Amino acid sequence: MPENTVTREDLEARLKANPFAAWMGLSILSLDEEVLEIGLVWKEDMIANPEARNTHGGILAALIDTAADFMIAAKVGRPVPTIDLRIDYHSAAGPGDLRAVARIKRLGRTFSTAEAEILDADGKLIASGRGVYFTAAAQE
Amino acid sequence: MPENTVTREDLEARLKANPFAAWMGLSILSLDEEVLEIGLVWKEDMIANPEARNTHGGILAALIDTAADFMIAAKVGRPVPTIDLRIDYHSAAGPGDLRAVARIKRLGRTFSTAEAEILDADGKLIASGRGVYFTAAAQE
Amino acid sequence: MPENTVTREDLEARLKANPFAAWMGLSILSLDEEVLEIGLVWKEDMIANPEARNTHGGILAALIDTAADFMIAAKVGRPVPTIDLRIDYHSAAGPGDLRAVARIKRLGRTFSTAEAEILDADGKLIASGRGVYFTAAAQE
Amino acid sequence: MPENTVTREDLEARLKANPFAAWMGLSILSLDEEVLEIGLVWKEDMIANPEARNTHGGILAALIDTAADFMIAAKVGRPVPTIDLRIDYHSAAGPGDLRAVARIKRLGRTFSTAEAEILDADGKLIASGRGVYFTAAAQE
Repeated sequence: MPENTVTREDLEARLKANPFAAWMGLSILSLDEEVLEIGLVWKEDMIANPEARNTHGGILAALIDTAADFMIAAKVGRPVPTIDLRIDYHSAAGPGDLRAVARIKRLGRTFSTAEAEILDADGKLIASGRGVYFTAAAQE
Repeated sequence: MPENTVTREDLEARLKANPFAAWMGLSILSLDEEVLEIGLVWKEDMIANPEARNTHGGILAALIDTAADFMIAAKVGRPVPTIDLRIDYHSAAGPGDLRAVARIKRLGRTFSTAEAEILDADGKLIASGRGVYFTAAAQE
Repeated sequence: MPENTVTREDLEARLKANPFAAWMGLSILSLDEEVLEIGLVWKEDMIANPEARNTHGGILAALIDTAADFMIAAKVGRPVPTIDLRIDYHSAAGPGDLRAVARIKRLGRTFSTAEAEILDADGKLIASGRGVYFTAAAQE
Repeated sequence: MPENTVTREDLEARLKANPFAAWMGLSILSLDEEVLEIGLVWKEDMIANPEARNTHGGILAALIDTAADFMIAAKVGRPVPTIDLRIDYHSAAGPGDLRAVARIKRLGRTFSTAEAEILDADGKLIASGRGVYFTAAAQE
């Protein structure tokens, strides 16, 4: 894996400038050459079902996509378009902050694959998934 | 395909009671035995990138998941857990309301597959995808 | 959708020249501007489980991938690399010939999405799925 | 993760009894509580393109599905039905034997997710992917 080309500060600035990421309360918890961790600040508007009070699967998908994309951004210089996304839902997420852990599966000149998993505050695996990203867009 | 067991009014009430669906401004545009159409009211918080002003892929994923799940709900009586979700992003969505069109691919006793596509106001295909849903949960 | 640029005869010749497609007994049943149908000649080596005698999911994946790719080939001139593939298995396929029906979801200059479903001799839906294909490779 | 309930010898016997797995020349290279490695013996019939001589994506899908399913089988007692499968193709596989490395992402009572990657003889990552499996079928 090549070295990161973006500092944590620059990546954080890009994340904060992304309105939906800001709405989700996303922030970078850690970044090294292999792993990016992003935290989400839970809120009532994220609920899917008023009785079960579980977090909407779309929020989980958005968090996985953002974390995977930003790990690629750390390598290629900026977030790149998502071509497709696949999410597995493993456990319902009750109210509470979440954490996504992202890694690159393969970094390519044209396309790249990255994956992320979401953990709750107890470390329980909530969801995991992958996106394919159009890395060539970073050269445009 | 069996007949719907839920009226449009009941389905709409469930949609409105779902906090994240409400945040996205979702409403039922039409429902028949084969197709459910759901509208989304766009807002600034849905943007992914402040320059390009494209809608976040997580919003599109949430809309596809919700539309597919609610088409199944029309048959089985209530929304059911998403097991997995796969989204293809076809074109960037600029600011503006969106519409999802959902159909069931296969309705099963234990698992079901439904799909949806998202169109913008000009009828342009923005994204499409599928979920697998745990239909047996509706009997619990 | 643009017009096909490859005749059925040329597409059939490419299919027959593909060793694994030939092993699966694939042939073109029909081709028009929207739909490609490919037939598979079943054989004992395709079985996954000696008791249940169901057809291996990998055979179904190969058939969906090939049909989707060849529908794109009809437009762009030749089969193109598969970037990723997603298959839903709807019903077990007992021994017997199968038929795949493929359509393009979106044809793009750089990448394209196509989908296919597999039906058995009774018209029962066995599996369905989609691939994303690297269309730009056809210009190389 | 619970302990394996099937010995390597029993799992190997099931693999050899699977006609399509036998056609692909699959055998167990290693098995422990976390990882299953399966080898594939390459042959000419596996080629997709007679000029490029790359291995057909359907073969790679079949190998990933089989490895993921058999890692679950090691826990639950027997291979279980695949609900859906998602494959990312990272590099073309030239002629030559392949190896799949499978791990369970989440083992559930009703459904489970497992993933596998395929490496060539040089250790190059060829493809990777995941399936969702109907684990409850093992209790039937």
